[in-house]
Amino acid sequence: MATLQDLMLSAAINGGSTIVFLLVFAFLRLQPFSDRVYYPKWFIKGVRKSEDRPIKARFVNLDPRAYLHFLDWMWESIRMPELELIDHAGLDSAILLRIYLLGLKVFVPLLVLCFLILVPVNATDTNLRKSSGKLFSADIDKLSVANVQDRSDRLWAHMLLTYVFTLWTCYVLHNEYKTVAFMRLRFLKSQMSRPEQFTVLVRQIPDDPDETVGLHVDHFFRVNHYEHYLMYQAGEIVYNANKLAKIVKKIEDIENKLNYCRIMESRNPSSRPQIKKGFLGIRGEKLDAMKFYTSEIERLVGEAATEKERIFSDEKAKLPVAFVTFDSRWGAAVCAQTQQTKDPTKWLAEWAPEPRDVYWRNLAIPYMELYFRKIAITAAVVVLILFFMIPVTFVQSLANIEDIERTVKFLRPVIERKFIKSILQGFLPGLALKIFLLILPSVLMILSKVEGHLSLSKLDRMAAAKHFYFMVFNVFFASVFTGSALQQLKLFLHKSPSDIPQLLGDAIPLKATFFISYIMVDGWASVAGEILRLKPLLFFHFRNMMFVKTEKDREKAMAPGGLSLNTALPHVGLYFLLGLVYAVIAPIILPFIVTFFGFSYLVYRNQVINVYHPEYESAGGFWPHIHNRVVASMIIMQLTLLGLLSTKRAASSTPFLAGLPVLTFIFHTYTKRCFESAFVKFPLEEARAKDLIDQAKDPHTDFRSLFRNSYTHPVLKTEEDLEQGHRDWQEGDTQLVPTKRGSSARQSRAPSVNNSMTGLL
Amino acid sequence: MATLQDLMLSAAINGGSTIVFLLVFAFLRLQPFSDRVYYPKWFIKGVRKSEDRPIKARFVNLDPRAYLHFLDWMWESIRMPELELIDHAGLDSAILLRIYLLGLKVFVPLLVLCFLILVPVNATDTNLRKSSGKLFSADIDKLSVANVQDRSDRLWAHMLLTYVFTLWTCYVLHNEYKTVAFMRLRFLKSQMSRPEQFTVLVRQIPDDPDETVGLHVDHFFRVNHYEHYLMYQAGEIVYNANKLAKIVKKIEDIENKLNYCRIMESRNPSSRPQIKKGFLGIRGEKLDAMKFYTSEIERLVGEAATEKERIFSDEKAKLPVAFVTFDSRWGAAVCAQTQQTKDPTKWLAEWAPEPRDVYWRNLAIPYMELYFRKIAITAAVVVLILFFMIPVTFVQSLANIEDIERTVKFLRPVIERKFIKSILQGFLPGLALKIFLLILPSVLMILSKVEGHLSLSKLDRMAAAKHFYFMVFNVFFASVFTGSALQQLKLFLHKSPSDIPQLLGDAIPLKATFFISYIMVDGWASVAGEILRLKPLLFFHFRNMMFVKTEKDREKAMAPGGLSLNTALPHVGLYFLLGLVYAVIAPIILPFIVTFFGFSYLVYRNQVINVYHPEYESAGGFWPHIHNRVVASMIIMQLTLLGLLSTKRAASSTPFLAGLPVLTFIFHTYTKRCFESAFVKFPLEEARAKDLIDQAKDPHTDFRSLFRNSYTHPVLKTEEDLEQGHRDWQEGDTQLVPTKRGSSARQSRAPSVNNSMTGLL
Repeated sequence: MATLQDLMLSAAINGGSTIVFLLVFAFLRLQPFSDRVYYPKWFIKGVRKSEDRPIKARFVNLDPRAYLHFLDWMWESIRMPELELIDHAGLDSAILLRIYLLGLKVFVPLLVLCFLILVPVNATDTNLRKSSGKLFSADIDKLSVANVQDRSDRLWAHMLLTYVFTLWTCYVLHNEYKTVAFMRLRFLKSQMSRPEQFTVLVRQIPDDPDETVGLHVDHFFRVNHYEHYLMYQAGEIVYNANKLAKIVKKIEDIENKLNYCRIMESRNPSSRPQIKKGFLGIRGEKLDAMKFYTSEIERLVGEAATEKERIFSDEKAKLPVAFVTFDSRWGAAVCAQTQQTKDPTKWLAEWAPEPRDVYWRNLAIPYMELYFRKIAITAAVVVLILFFMIPVTFVQSLANIEDIERTVKFLRPVIERKFIKSILQGFLPGLALKIFLLILPSVLMILSKVEGHLSLSKLDRMAAAKHFYFMVFNVFFASVFTGSALQQLKLFLHKSPSDIPQLLGDAIPLKATFFISYIMVDGWASVAGEILRLKPLLFFHFRNMMFVKTEKDREKAMAPGGLSLNTALPHVGLYFLLGLVYAVIAPIILPFIVTFFGFSYLVYRNQVINVYHPEYESAGGFWPHIHNRVVASMIIMQLTLLGLLSTKRAASSTPFLAGLPVLTFIFHTYTKRCFESAFVKFPLEEARAKDLIDQAKDPHTDFRSLFRNSYTHPVLKTEEDLEQGHRDWQEGDTQLVPTKRGSSARQSRAPSVNNSMTGLL
Repeated sequence: MATLQDLMLSAAINGGSTIVFLLVFAFLRLQPFSDRVYYPKWFIKGVRKSEDRPIKARFVNLDPRAYLHFLDWMWESIRMPELELIDHAGLDSAILLRIYLLGLKVFVPLLVLCFLILVPVNATDTNLRKSSGKLFSADIDKLSVANVQDRSDRLWAHMLLTYVFTLWTCYVLHNEYKTVAFMRLRFLKSQMSRPEQFTVLVRQIPDDPDETVGLHVDHFFRVNHYEHYLMYQAGEIVYNANKLAKIVKKIEDIENKLNYCRIMESRNPSSRPQIKKGFLGIRGEKLDAMKFYTSEIERLVGEAATEKERIFSDEKAKLPVAFVTFDSRWGAAVCAQTQQTKDPTKWLAEWAPEPRDVYWRNLAIPYMELYFRKIAITAAVVVLILFFMIPVTFVQSLANIEDIERTVKFLRPVIERKFIKSILQGFLPGLALKIFLLILPSVLMILSKVEGHLSLSKLDRMAAAKHFYFMVFNVFFASVFTGSALQQLKLFLHKSPSDIPQLLGDAIPLKATFFISYIMVDGWASVAGEILRLKPLLFFHFRNMMFVKTEKDREKAMAPGGLSLNTALPHVGLYFLLGLVYAVIAPIILPFIVTFFGFSYLVYRNQVINVYHPEYESAGGFWPHIHNRVVASMIIMQLTLLGLLSTKRAASSTPFLAGLPVLTFIFHTYTKRCFESAFVKFPLEEARAKDLIDQAKDPHTDFRSLFRNSYTHPVLKTEEDLEQGHRDWQEGDTQLVPTKRGSSARQSRAPSVNNSMTGLL
């Protein structure tokens, strides 16, 4: 148990370090040498250029007036209106920001109500004072429900407020879902003609002994969708180019090394760099590095050419997958929403992801295999959640400082110092947990990729879902029950269902301080870290020194990063869960939650405007996930309260509260029915309206040439395709910025980056 | 505990009474006076006519040769090949029969395996002999798993057979689902042009201040489906004719009474029948009945005419519902499978049920109200299941004969007589339960109607689902745990999840004899009752004497009945559950189950061919329900086995069996994915192919006049519509018989039956 003093100290440390981070950022962002780290978005859009500044001001900002306005970034980031923001950074970014705003909308009124009503009600009771002889009760617990006596009438305040909180949260959620669905439809409507609006991804094309896949597709759609069928994409069909993609990746790696050698040589022409050929470059005969790399590249380019030839000639390289384009949005909407044949596992049509969003490698997975992959990955995630216990229990032992004192006795004099004890209690537990959690997103992303999803946006969402489940069990419940998910499972199997809420009710109030420190370390500090971009800063300067020869290389070195929804969403979900569960039980947590949401909103708005360059645009497709998680959090909150009140023996209240989860569930199905379809289907009326407008504007649009080769595996694109793609993005659509680089981060490789390739292939 | 002797006696009694029923039927069916009771289907089809027989043979069959062939009906009912049966009685009937066949396919091999392997394994062990000092162990239990010793290696036989049974059942289910899906698609393909193939039911048409509902629909579909939109049905739109339907119903009732009076008068012209006008016809002044009824009819006919006028002129009587017809199956399939507008609660399109199948009254329910009705009805069903305990516990006390002896001591001498005791134990418990269950279907059907489903087929399915849940909890689990559903709920809440299978494992083997007697009384006897048709037999002769004046009246008095899926499906579901759960535990139950399925198949095949006249044709739409229930039964069986083996302390087997429910669930999702869509959607390829064939056959079909007024509320139909409808059924489609009577049983009223109406309206 931490005292109020511990908590204040910890808050001061964390708050202080956060402010230091911010000050460093405010200073660095004014320096020209970090322009490309803090404003890459503007460089990519071509608005800001290195040559804009006078030569002498290219490294350090010597203008003292600039430093007077060092906090302006906050104002600047808030100033941009939402519509302009959508234009500038895409709808996904705008909707990500709305999540933080949602947090504020939910929790600020809760905070006010709690501090006006609940805190006085709790603080003036005497439950903890009475029992203070036995138990060491910390000051901070006096503000929580633990201080209210059993069977007290004061508990009615908590019950009523649970109702008020639930109703308020539902109201805000409902409005927000409505707004976001509206924004999504408006956004889709305002877009220019884009290939994904006219294209359907068809999988499981059955074998036909008499026809090639391409002809088969053509005949099928000419008969069954003759009204609007236009063509199938990519010259012939989708190819399995995964092997080629690997070769291209290798070439690019070696090119980087070659570049590095050249720069080294230009700095020190006397010594040509050498490498060893053998194991890991440590053993074996010495070679001239540049010569070796050049010959390697030549060899691989040859290999790539052969592989490319094989792909085009080999019938097996053609996947039973096609991107089918229609001459109207209506036709595509119909095809994507209907069943094509009587065998529901053949000719499966779904909306094509936008070209940048396609995760090409997974198109090669046979459809029936996906089903088993899904089962296997689900099992793997369950195992991961159940057996992640070792690091978590380690953290738990750290969090309990008294235990450490007892076991490691020689440390006692150090730990007993008040200052160090406070630091340990406030800072260490959260930090240790955080380190273990840092490697997790990559693991979950790999699992999601193996699961076989076809678009980057889906990958992000599925990885985020896995991460959220992980956090609920291994952070929230594990901390509450002080046990791993495996131990929880045993507990749940051997306790009767009526005992579980009581267990929750017993354990949850005791953990408020732990979660407060977690919010500070995980929430505040990591958001501050996000704005400082320490890793990209170092990385950029390192690359700039080592590899950068041309302006193009420098652009590549900026690495602005995307929205990282796979990590952002589950974290926000956890804070909603914490805020809602503790709002009634220990309102002291709310100021920390509100600070987190406010601060995040500020920081992410800055990042979205100045830094991030999203890989794809899913038009807010992730909103239903967030909505569902907040609803689930509400239900956990209500069950917790039920349990807590039954431990407080306020038996008459149980039926009063038992209706809430049911009502919340009804709210859930209601909103799902009303709004979810905006994120799944494209209504025919909208499609037709947009078709008619387009037709009125330009009755002779040649869709066939407009969308030719929109969906081509990046490594198979010719120089001409790339030029066209580039033009498409820039001319066709002001809202979405050019994007050759878009798919390069997680896709196998976009070819624009390797100069030696494009001529040859 | 019953002994083997008790069981044999009970089987002999039940089997004997069943055989007596069958003999009576075999005798009665040869008598001309019951022709219309046992062969109504052939009268309706016009194949058999009363005039076919010579006058003297119109009442009793005096031909002794006929009695030599009195068992021919069995052979006759089996002889008709399936395709002819589908032609003759519709696909629903054929698929209902396949359910009983499925039972045989599943349980006959299980029976053989059990009696070859399990029964010897069980019978040769000594568990019950050892403990016979303490427990009274009945002979019959020696054949069950109860006789196997704890920790015995013999239990491996049970485990392996559980695997074999599961795999076999899955295999049979998979093949059957595939076959039924195929039959359904073939049936739909072979049908002639029928209105429901071209029509979509559109609900939630939003208000438009400037247009009538009809114009609004027309404009919407002319824009958004201009490719294939044809017209909307029913002159204007769907009217709220519920009040009119009530008046028509009243007129018909009074006409019946009038008819009766006329017949009475013709028999005894001296005394004119009189009635009292007041409360229930008991009090008040006396009136001349015929005069009164005639004037009443006149009054009501006038009222009906006014009401009809009001309907056509009143804007409020127009429901925001329309039947929209397309000029091709493709267009309708597209509309039914897609979302129309961005608000997913407006312009909801779904396949129209066939015209006979529409439950008109519920079309008037506002869509958003449906949602709350669903919640309310779900709650009502839960309450019904939970509080049905009084009759069930009553049955339970009857089943335990030793208890009765103890409480009602003066009955002891009677009960102690071996013969009477056997009767009581074998016969009474099942019968008493049966009586309580007889009123249930009507209650559940009313609940389903209130729930607001739009077609009779859906109503049947939903009532069947409710009934099945009811049976699982209040027959199966209530008998196993000897407690009401409410007590079970308490039990489940206060026991840990790991204890539940053990409880099941303890209790289930003890109840085998109870369920055997239940199968005989509920299964065998009610099937025998079904073929004897005692109630329709008496009812027909009563009506024939009292009300029948014309041939038409006589046809009406036949009351052939439909398939009664709402009661047939849940009962079969229960027998699947019993058979699967007890197959491994007490194989002695299997011969009774197999007898039930075989006997039912025989009887229902006869009924389907000779008696039933289904109200609608859903093309086997109920199959997925049956499939899902058998799968659920398998999972219950596996959990029971798990619990049983853990009570037998065969701990090493638990992980071996734990995989089975998971595998079964995977099987479930797999079959769902592969076959369910055949019952939900109409694939575009099939639709187009059928469209193209039709077009090739007759390029100038005038769909507009062909489908004019196909969907009109029965009470609003004109004489002309009726004639046309009649022609449609007879000419347009050889597979589906004419059906004016079809909707009369449960619909408010089909107007063909009231002569005074048709001219006036």
